[in-house]
Amino acid sequence: MRILGNVRMASIAAGSGQAPLSDPVAIVVDGPQIAWVGGAESLPDRFAGAPRRDLGGRVVTPGLIDCHTHIVFGGDRAREFAMRLEGASYEDIARAGGGILSSVRDTRAAGEDRLLASALPRVDALLAEGVTTLEIKSGYGLEIGTELKMLRVARRIGEVRKVTVRTTWLAAHALPPEYAHDRAAYLRDVVIAGMDRAHVEGLIDAVDGFCEGIAFSPDEIAQVFDHAASLGLPVKLHAEQLSDRGGAALAARRGAISADHLEYLGDDGIAAMAQSGTVAVLLPGAFYTLRETKLPPVAALRAAGVPMALATDCNPGTSPLTSILLAMNMGATLFRMTPLECLAGVTAHAARALGLSDRGRVEPGLRADLAIWDIGDPAELSYRIGFNPLHARIVGGEFV
Amino acid sequence: MRILGNVRMASIAAGSGQAPLSDPVAIVVDGPQIAWVGGAESLPDRFAGAPRRDLGGRVVTPGLIDCHTHIVFGGDRAREFAMRLEGASYEDIARAGGGILSSVRDTRAAGEDRLLASALPRVDALLAEGVTTLEIKSGYGLEIGTELKMLRVARRIGEVRKVTVRTTWLAAHALPPEYAHDRAAYLRDVVIAGMDRAHVEGLIDAVDGFCEGIAFSPDEIAQVFDHAASLGLPVKLHAEQLSDRGGAALAARRGAISADHLEYLGDDGIAAMAQSGTVAVLLPGAFYTLRETKLPPVAALRAAGVPMALATDCNPGTSPLTSILLAMNMGATLFRMTPLECLAGVTAHAARALGLSDRGRVEPGLRADLAIWDIGDPAELSYRIGFNPLHARIVGGEFV
Ligand SMILES: [Zn+2]
Ligand SMILES: [Zn+2]
Repeated sequence: MRILGNVRMASIAAGSGQAPLSDPVAIVVDGPQIAWVGGAESLPDRFAGAPRRDLGGRVVTPGLIDCHTHIVFGGDRAREFAMRLEGASYEDIARAGGGILSSVRDTRAAGEDRLLASALPRVDALLAEGVTTLEIKSGYGLEIGTELKMLRVARRIGEVRKVTVRTTWLAAHALPPEYAHDRAAYLRDVVIAGMDRAHVEGLIDAVDGFCEGIAFSPDEIAQVFDHAASLGLPVKLHAEQLSDRGGAALAARRGAISADHLEYLGDDGIAAMAQSGTVAVLLPGAFYTLRETKLPPVAALRAAGVPMALATDCNPGTSPLTSILLAMNMGATLFRMTPLECLAGVTAHAARALGLSDRGRVEPGLRADLAIWDIGDPAELSYRIGFNPLHARIVGGEFV
Repeated sequence: MRILGNVRMASIAAGSGQAPLSDPVAIVVDGPQIAWVGGAESLPDRFAGAPRRDLGGRVVTPGLIDCHTHIVFGGDRAREFAMRLEGASYEDIARAGGGILSSVRDTRAAGEDRLLASALPRVDALLAEGVTTLEIKSGYGLEIGTELKMLRVARRIGEVRKVTVRTTWLAAHALPPEYAHDRAAYLRDVVIAGMDRAHVEGLIDAVDGFCEGIAFSPDEIAQVFDHAASLGLPVKLHAEQLSDRGGAALAARRGAISADHLEYLGDDGIAAMAQSGTVAVLLPGAFYTLRETKLPPVAALRAAGVPMALATDCNPGTSPLTSILLAMNMGATLFRMTPLECLAGVTAHAARALGLSDRGRVEPGLRADLAIWDIGDPAELSYRIGFNPLHARIVGGEFV
């Protein structure tokens, strides 16, 4: 038991009209959980003897949650990035072995230890900004062995670092060339058969897919979701990133915990998501990197009451972003979300996008995953660009 | 004397067709200078006894140079940022005391120590990314005392941190309300009279102005430049950010060391800059924050052989950016500069934008300001978003 004294809580209830900051409060932590929150003057007697740490009036938020990443991968794509800017065509880059298949090749070739070693600096950059929960997807294997390897590495990240890792099965990320002429066989023999194996090994917390013209159709995704449902696994979907295929509505009808990207989401999809309570996970790092001009329908999502989350989408091709604070700044600057919405987007709503009800707010009974900040106004977290005001990260009640 | 052994040099000669990385070399540092660079096998006998530090094949670049900042200011504008996103109009914000005049008010009110204390975390964020030279402008005083105070704080930053600070007199940044009806008096009594005083105190390394419809006309800037010339001070200019006023051409005709922003730069301005050797300082942080759509004419500048620099423009209103690596990523992603151009833009060309010929390249006779990176390809510095692979910073020959 310990008391975190003299902290001000950042509001994460967007649209509530609440002040952005509370008066100073005390937070009582008992083991890995928050036991009590309130003004120091009303601290219950049963906590009065606990050791107290004065946090000097600093700001506390829930530990940040990056709810959409592909942070485990082999190689990088810096040379391809340079080639494109130097004027190379897509054919030139493909001939030089670039594109997503280069990440697949490098991920297949790398051993578990090497994958882990290359992911950890990226993970550490996120943790240094107050991240306490991290989602990691497979999807650069496109064959069962490598997909399992990626998720084993994800689990190991959760063991060697003080962070909760949630794993997502994303074999339905792209069709590998060896199945170019038999999509059904890929779905059956890799996506679904692999899901069974990974599930038996305890490697899957949720199942995802990429619903797009260049990836899988709604009908194909539905088969993946059917199988996930038979295993009792929650689903989510990369949907409406480049075109409106009705992916988000499909996901919502299946009770998906989130639909992600959503630049091309239409009114039907919004209505379906509002009805099902599916979280809209917005990924401004990919929007920025791809220089997209079609904005996700933030105002309509807000009006419909769809909870919005923000995440890095950390991946080597379309979002080599390892800063959740920058994702917040981009959410505000590019997507016109308010700083309050950005903060809810990496805490309460991000927790919900992962199906986690035990975190994402600073409330008794929830996990004591917290971030303490050297800021005067929570809006600073979204306003500043490339600045990290983290004072301390608290995971399961412990300063780390 | 010391030998930095086993480092690979990143090429900064854009368009040279050079490989992005050299074979491993040794760098001999003698006092604050680079004495020799070459393959270890050809190390001259006179250096053979010097202590050697093996850098493990890491990549070395010149220390990075942020050649355009307004990093000393009072207050911040996070609340204004939030208000705007929450739907406040410009009038609402002005009524709440927002806008540039809020920074002027807060900067006037702050003492030197407070200004220093608030600037240092921002400066430290830049230094942590390998910055070894930093330009700092006045311009939030708009009265002589506060303008001098800002530059004194800038000089103190150079004393309390291991970084070269170059100061710029920017009283011609905005017209303060008290002179709204007498622009000539502001130029005479503050911009020019203050320049004399600051120069006597040794506070000015260069003179700058903001040439724009909302700031000062080319004729007004010409008066400022005339006075700078009479004092032997180099000039530079904020030009063509929001419209084409011919500011860059004026600056070039006066032999300016740089013209900065340049989104609206036309062919005449480009030709004038090419002829005078004026550096184009591009500021993608402001472009991004203002959600501009008019891109600076990068291809035309490249074709004309105008050297391009990149900088953070760190300021509380239009670019609250404290990451030079992000400025590089934005230079590539938003402005389509190549990674090589981005690197030259924060080294060799940034030095030139500050009139400094003693740094910005890794060559014998130049200052031993260096950055050592944990990267495999220099393009990673521009490719990654929100990741800092700095291994060590070397200032004047010393690891700091
Ligand atoms: Zn994704
Ligand atoms: Zn500026």
